[in-house]
Amino acid sequence: TTMDYSTNDSKSTSKKKVVAVVGGGLVGNLNACYFAKRGFQVEVFESREDILQAKIVKGRSINLVLSHRGRQTLKHVGMEDTIISKGIPMHSRMIHALNGTQSPIPYGKKGQYILSIDRANLNKELLSAAETYPNINLNFANKLLDWSTETGAMTFVRAEGAKEEIQADLIVGCDGAFSAIRKQFLRQSRFNYSQTYTPHGYLEFTMPPINGEFAMKPNNLHIWPRNTFMMIALPNLDKTFNCTLFMPFEEFEKVTTGDKVIEFFQKYFPDAIPLIGALLRGIFFRLPAQAMVSVKCSSYHFGDKCVLMGDAAHAMVPFYGQGMNALFLIFISGAVLPEYTRVRVPDDLAIYFILLTNSDVNSKWFLFRKYVDNFLHIIMPRTIIPLYTMVTFTRTRYHKVVKHWHWQDKVRKDIVHVHSTLFKGL
Amino acid sequence: TTMDYSTNDSKSTSKKKVVAVVGGGLVGNLNACYFAKRGFQVEVFESREDILQAKIVKGRSINLVLSHRGRQTLKHVGMEDTIISKGIPMHSRMIHALNGTQSPIPYGKKGQYILSIDRANLNKELLSAAETYPNINLNFANKLLDWSTETGAMTFVRAEGAKEEIQADLIVGCDGAFSAIRKQFLRQSRFNYSQTYTPHGYLEFTMPPINGEFAMKPNNLHIWPRNTFMMIALPNLDKTFNCTLFMPFEEFEKVTTGDKVIEFFQKYFPDAIPLIGALLRGIFFRLPAQAMVSVKCSSYHFGDKCVLMGDAAHAMVPFYGQGMNALFLIFISGAVLPEYTRVRVPDDLAIYFILLTNSDVNSKWFLFRKYVDNFLHIIMPRTIIPLYTMVTFTRTRYHKVVKHWHWQDKVRKDIVHVHSTLFKGL
Repeated sequence: TTMDYSTNDSKSTSKKKVVAVVGGGLVGNLNACYFAKRGFQVEVFESREDILQAKIVKGRSINLVLSHRGRQTLKHVGMEDTIISKGIPMHSRMIHALNGTQSPIPYGKKGQYILSIDRANLNKELLSAAETYPNINLNFANKLLDWSTETGAMTFVRAEGAKEEIQADLIVGCDGAFSAIRKQFLRQSRFNYSQTYTPHGYLEFTMPPINGEFAMKPNNLHIWPRNTFMMIALPNLDKTFNCTLFMPFEEFEKVTTGDKVIEFFQKYFPDAIPLIGALLRGIFFRLPAQAMVSVKCSSYHFGDKCVLMGDAAHAMVPFYGQGMNALFLIFISGAVLPEYTRVRVPDDLAIYFILLTNSDVNSKWFLFRKYVDNFLHIIMPRTIIPLYTMVTFTRTRYHKVVKHWHWQDKVRKDIVHVHSTLFKGL
Repeated sequence: TTMDYSTNDSKSTSKKKVVAVVGGGLVGNLNACYFAKRGFQVEVFESREDILQAKIVKGRSINLVLSHRGRQTLKHVGMEDTIISKGIPMHSRMIHALNGTQSPIPYGKKGQYILSIDRANLNKELLSAAETYPNINLNFANKLLDWSTETGAMTFVRAEGAKEEIQADLIVGCDGAFSAIRKQFLRQSRFNYSQTYTPHGYLEFTMPPINGEFAMKPNNLHIWPRNTFMMIALPNLDKTFNCTLFMPFEEFEKVTTGDKVIEFFQKYFPDAIPLIGALLRGIFFRLPAQAMVSVKCSSYHFGDKCVLMGDAAHAMVPFYGQGMNALFLIFISGAVLPEYTRVRVPDDLAIYFILLTNSDVNSKWFLFRKYVDNFLHIIMPRTIIPLYTMVTFTRTRYHKVVKHWHWQDKVRKDIVHVHSTLFKGL
């Protein structure tokens, strides 16, 4: 069967323009709300079953970190308060040393914090919000098979196996890092593309409450930095922590039995053993370690027919908590698609730079630079702004963040230089 | 129909192992000869018609530069002499300044040269060589539709539209920068991949002989460096030069009429106007400027079923003349595929570094460094070897070239420093 939702035929010019959002995750549902608010007819196509109905929800569960950029985006669709009411503020990183010592490093100035957000719950909230718009139609169990760059027609396979061809005025590809929509972009000449896997995999597990209370201080993002790998833990409303272990795949392969898990934790995370408790022996064996990919590409648009959004355009590794926060939206119509590419690509590349710059939370230099930065920020608050603060607590465009940071770096070096020269002079 | 060439079934273990080479260009035919020499049954599948029979040959025609590495490869299949007899030695770059002055920069020491090779002729020679092996079977007009990573079965569409399924013991993907074989690699987890287009396009045209003779000195690679773009010209046996203009696409778009072509040449390449002659007005309008892509990926192999070779694995922009010369072959069987990836990837990445390092042939620093290098090479021939010499006149592995070059760079800087300090001292 063929369904033509588009308004290209001459009879129906008075009809609403139809936007097809492919992918009903965070990015897809948020975009659907934005387009619906602008008056478009929105058709969302999601390959999975309705998560509000389904019993088992597949997909990633690493908690999300919500900061200023992401909050502003939610605010525009009236959802900021609902979401933050279910988030847990984290004021500091809490660094766990090998000997069990815990040292907090604040995220910003007093009162500034980021939020630990349950991914599945945020998904549900966004889906529920989308359902309230009369001009959003949610189509579950619709898997994209292919689409035509000439006509813009999409072919979906439904759960029962039937194929359906669908036509819209604009396709918005929100179908994640392994985007099916993006496949057509790859066949286009002069489309730059890269996908890079980290040598690290990740493994998730739960740290249960102890005597009905959080096993560790709840208002922190707990970090166990261990050279080539690390563990993190983020708090949940049910007083559990969601733990994630990031480690090279080769290391995961070495841990083959419950005894080896214990041995491994005794060597690297002894303080976490009593906190995880009886579950610990089994954590490596329920699911294999997952791969992490970062995707970069340009352009984000294909003529006036299609545009990529979110992970489909710029999947990133989770270490800096910007995946969701990078998702901001500008008004889109056919004519502005090239503009979207022009404006966004430098920002998204800047995020990768920031990730590289901050990959070494463990080093003494990182701690020293944070100390210098925070000190300078206090005495010159408008001139010196720590990198993390610019990224997390402002909406300064990412590429400007990097530019400003480079300039600050020069200032910082001069100051450190003067400082050390003075000492040498003594 | 299904054709099972493979030896996996128990009855035919005494049969020769079958290698399917997908792509019958330079890389495919050369690989076919290598595998045939090793005693394999080789099936070559090429989507185009037989170029030895066909009247019109499509594809690129930028002349190839053959240097030491490429010659060694040809030697192993007994073709070095045939090919160099039809090449034209180039001893120097010949730099054309805006005022028409020509300055030679030698490629190496006296007697060292690179060869200008006609791509179409080399293709034909390799194809003719492949035809002489009784255990090579050339299948033209066979376009790969898909292949299965589980069974290794390939599906081809023949010219008349019939589909055929083919099974081999090993698939060798030699199908170029836009490899159809590689598509299955992209669907695999942890496959790193990038494709990057230059902002430059290229346009080819011919400089005819003048009074039956070469229009310029034949034993040079002529270069007109002009900041963001450049023109080059390589000699052919028929006393023409193959010219290529590399320029940002935006600049190409500005030249819309014959008059504008003349105007453009008057501004940038006045000395070439009388040499190209009457053909000049038309050169921008026969074919559009072509895009250039560089491809990097890892791994090059997929289990024991498939391996990528040549541009399919590491397409590179033509500026350093290493595309063909990077094509060297190590013995391959299922078990050594991971080893092939491990050995080759660092070398191929090194080539990209070398390309970056040498992208500025126009700068005074480049000329000065070449002068210092060549001078040091004369007084310390085993210690200081110019980068171009290592790449072009040796078979030193590319990643070692880069390592040695970095070390030399330190020595060079020290020497220049001492030199300038001495001058300051005077």
